[in-house]
Formats: sequence, C-alpha cells, structure tokens
Amino acid sequence: MKPLNFKAWQTKVQAQTEMALNRFLPSETLSPEILHQAMRYAATGGGKRLRAMLVTAAAELGRYDEIALSQAIAAIEMIHAYSLIHDDLPCMDDDDMRRGKPSCHKAFGEAQALLAGDALQTLAFEVLSQENQLPYAQRLQSLRTLANASGSLGMAGGQSIDLSVVGLLPDLPALENMHALKTGALIRASVRLGALACFDVADDMLQKLDDYAADLGLAFQVVDDILDAQADSQVLGKTAGKDAENDKPSFVSFMGINAAKQYAHDLCQRAIYSVQNISADTHILQEMARFVLEREN
Amino acid sequence: MKPLNFKAWQTKVQAQTEMALNRFLPSETLSPEILHQAMRYAATGGGKRLRAMLVTAAAELGRYDEIALSQAIAAIEMIHAYSLIHDDLPCMDDDDMRRGKPSCHKAFGEAQALLAGDALQTLAFEVLSQENQLPYAQRLQSLRTLANASGSLGMAGGQSIDLSVVGLLPDLPALENMHALKTGALIRASVRLGALACFDVADDMLQKLDDYAADLGLAFQVVDDILDAQADSQVLGKTAGKDAENDKPSFVSFMGINAAKQYAHDLCQRAIYSVQNISADTHILQEMARFVLEREN
Repeated sequence: MKPLNFKAWQTKVQAQTEMALNRFLPSETLSPEILHQAMRYAATGGGKRLRAMLVTAAAELGRYDEIALSQAIAAIEMIHAYSLIHDDLPCMDDDDMRRGKPSCHKAFGEAQALLAGDALQTLAFEVLSQENQLPYAQRLQSLRTLANASGSLGMAGGQSIDLSVVGLLPDLPALENMHALKTGALIRASVRLGALACFDVADDMLQKLDDYAADLGLAFQVVDDILDAQADSQVLGKTAGKDAENDKPSFVSFMGINAAKQYAHDLCQRAIYSVQNISADTHILQEMARFVLEREN
Repeated sequence: MKPLNFKAWQTKVQAQTEMALNRFLPSETLSPEILHQAMRYAATGGGKRLRAMLVTAAAELGRYDEIALSQAIAAIEMIHAYSLIHDDLPCMDDDDMRRGKPSCHKAFGEAQALLAGDALQTLAFEVLSQENQLPYAQRLQSLRTLANASGSLGMAGGQSIDLSVVGLLPDLPALENMHALKTGALIRASVRLGALACFDVADDMLQKLDDYAADLGLAFQVVDDILDAQADSQVLGKTAGKDAENDKPSFVSFMGINAAKQYAHDLCQRAIYSVQNISADTHILQEMARFVLEREN
C-alpha cells in the first residue's frame, strides 16, 4: 500500500478520532442529557487533533491493536478537551470562544461545564481500563502514563504555575518548565500511548519518541505564542492577543518575535533528528514537526 | 486477636486513612507548592472517612493485600475530596465551610481549588494503577469500578441532575435515582474496591456487599437531609439549612421528618440483613449501618 501523503493521513486520523470519541462518549439521549451534550460539544467536531495524530503516528511505527489505538486516541483527546473546558472557565482564563464556537460554559453554563470537564477526565481513564488484546501489564502502563502526564506533576501542575506567574516575569528556563508541564507532558504521553498500543514496544524507540515529543511540544508552545501575538481571532478560533492583554510571560515577550521563530524552527529540526534513526518509516512524524511549525491556528 | 469494638476500629481506620493519603499525596514542598498544599488541605485531616471505613471493612472480610488496601482507601477518599472541592465552588453549591474549616476555594482561591480537585481525581487513578501484589486483571477491575462510579453515569451524573432539579420537585423515585448516582455510586464502589483488594474475591459476596452498600448509601443521604433540616452549622461542619434555602427537593420535604427517620431506619435494617449471611465476621459492617443512622454530622 502506497503511504498516504500528510494531508490525506491527517484527514484520515481526524475521521478516526471522531469515530473513537463517538464510540466511547455516552449518547446525548442518555440521562443526564445536558451533561452528555456538554461532554460531546467539547470533545467532538473540532480541533487540530494534534494529540490524536501523535498517538496514531507512533502506533503506526509498529504492529498495533486497533481497539487499543482507538482507546488511546479517545482517552488523550478527552483529557485535552477536559483541560480546555476548565481552562476557559471565568475563574481561569475566562475565554468565551474555543475552536471557533462558544466555549463550553458559554453554551451550557458554568456548573454543567465544570462537571463535563470532570466527567471527561473520568471517562478517559475508564476507556483505558476497558478490554483490548494487549497484555494487562502494558494496559496498566498506559493508565499510569496518562495519569502522570495529566496530574499535579504534569498538565494540572503546569496550569497551576501558569496562574501564579501572571504579571511576573520568570526567566526562560522557568517559562519552559511551565510549558513542559502544561502542554508538553500530554504531548509526550501521546506518542508513548501510541507506542504502548503496539504488541512490540522497544525501550530505545520509546526514548527516541520521547525526545521527539519533548522538542515538538515546546515548539508547539513557541508557535502558539507567536500566533497569539500575530494572528486574528477568526483564524485562531479563540481570542487572540490574550497574552499581552493579561500581561502573561511568553516566548515572544522574552525573545522578540524573530528569535522566537528561529527557536521554533530549531526545536522542530531537533525533533526530526530524534526520529530519523528509528528503524521504521517515520516520515509522518517528520511531517508533523513541519506541520507544527507552519500551522496558522 | 480480640476483635476491636467499633469506636476503636473507626479510630484505627481514620489513622490508616491519613497515612495512606500522606503516602500518596505529593509533598507540599514540591513544585507547584500551592497546588500540592490545596490538595492536602482538602484531602487530609478531616471527614468521617465513611468511604475509607467501607473499603476497609469489606477488605477485612477476606485475605487482603496491604498495599492494595491503602491504594483503594487513598483513591476513594481522593475522589470524594475532589467532588467536595468542586461542589463547594461558587458556580456549584457556593459553600464557604467544609469539614469545619474554610472550603478549599476560600483558602486557596477558585482557580487553584479547581485545579486541586482536577489533580486529586487524576491522582486517584494514578494510585490505583501503581504496583501491588494482586493479579493485573483484578487491578484493572478496580480502576474500572472507580471510573464507573465517578463519571457521568455515576457521581458526576448525579451532580448534574442535582443542579437541574433546583426549584423543581420530581417524584420520590427521581430523587432516589439522583442520590443513587450522586453519593450512592461511590459508596457502592467503596465496598467493591475493598473486596477487590483481597486475593480471594467471591462473586456472591460482591453481590451481597453491593446490596448492603446500595441501602446504606441511600440511608446516608436520607440522614443527611434530616441533619440539614435539624442540625446547626457548628455541629455539621458545613452550612446547615441549605436545602430549604435553595429550594432543593429532599427526603424531608417529600416525606416529612418522621417518615424520613423511619425510612432511614428501615434502609439500615435491610443493609444489615444483606450482610448477615456472608460467611465471615460482618459485625463491623453492621455497626457501620447503625453509625450511619445515628451520626450527628
């Protein structure tokens, strides 16, 4: 079979992500309807699906279990969706738009949105604890990976630090550490969950994938800051210019826009080097690094 | 060894619960400090520990793994603590007091409290995915049990229904269904997690324990409504009279206080019957039913 070009592959993964989410999310007609509607509203039908792409690209390097892959995709995107719901709440970033539509609390009210985020997190772990063809030990490893990446020493910890640095300017390493937790941890978990959906997982490949994802995750955040400083809200699908408005430290405020662009470029190059000597076809992972660099929203 | 009387047993479990939580919660000196402080503030040092008692009492019916028991205790109390933090937020019940001290968002601000709840939920699943001596399949069963009980078809679903019935009066079955989800699901999960911490789990015992916990959980809620209508805030450790003030349907508003008391009594009797023919010493579980009936906060 001829390998798909990146654009066609991306379309395939986005469709598979919608299918996986539809499979594991409770029906909107099931009680409590409003909660299930809010969960679907936030999790389905939008987003770049960067994390699902990373899960899939890593899984496709080996011989993967199809059910395990769809569980990993659904779980990682549910955790991401939950974090966006809570991040958008008035007591956090207070954002009215997300993925080009009203944020979850604007559509369903704060209380139901809070619960929808809570229940999406729970569902992510439930999905990963369901049956598949992989050894039990590996399934528990996937659960631990997702939990470590999401909790107080991962994503939630990064958000906590992010909240406490508003108005303060830490040094660049402190900024990088915050992002390594806030977005980096889940991006690294994505490639790891993909690899763990395979029957044949090699430790040295896990290490190379992790190096790749660490650089890619940071590049993603540098580009995010550049887009926030430059783009308009309509292309971005969320409110632009928030960082400067909220006096938040960013790569742009630290380095200036040109150095930030060079930095993002260098990080993506390094990510590509990390996977070039994996003994499998890594062209999709390499294309993804270019995708992260060149994206407009 | 002479069996402990209930009071001494309860004190032992409360101490073991604090130990389990201290073991699995990240240190307050670890970054992000404020988040770890908020997590500990909400999870340790208070509460009746009803769920931890149920986990322990069920585990003590069989030959349990000590690490698995402490994991189950910590996980269930973390889920409970997370639900209380989020329940107390201004967009939910807006409660300033919890367990006799300022609620988490009063002490740490809304944003950090929200994240502390999020991270406590994550940590519950992480703890259950850590190593112990039990078979892998049983550990995955524990994870599924906790996830099912906490999510949109369990606790979070019950809270969603609870929010949408303010000012409306559904019938008694609707009220019971709401409580079966909101508090009942986690109480049933408690005895199940305790049984699943044992090397020898029998399906018929799981069924009897589940019948017990379903009645006990409902009795707990009926008593909660009675206490809310009668007690003062100081004894209760949280704001009393909230149900009537918020125009929330309750067992007291439906049945009147005397019928509610009789109902709680009947439910506890039925719970006791359910465990009387388990072939193990169930006196602690029976005492717990009396404890639920006679508690003052």
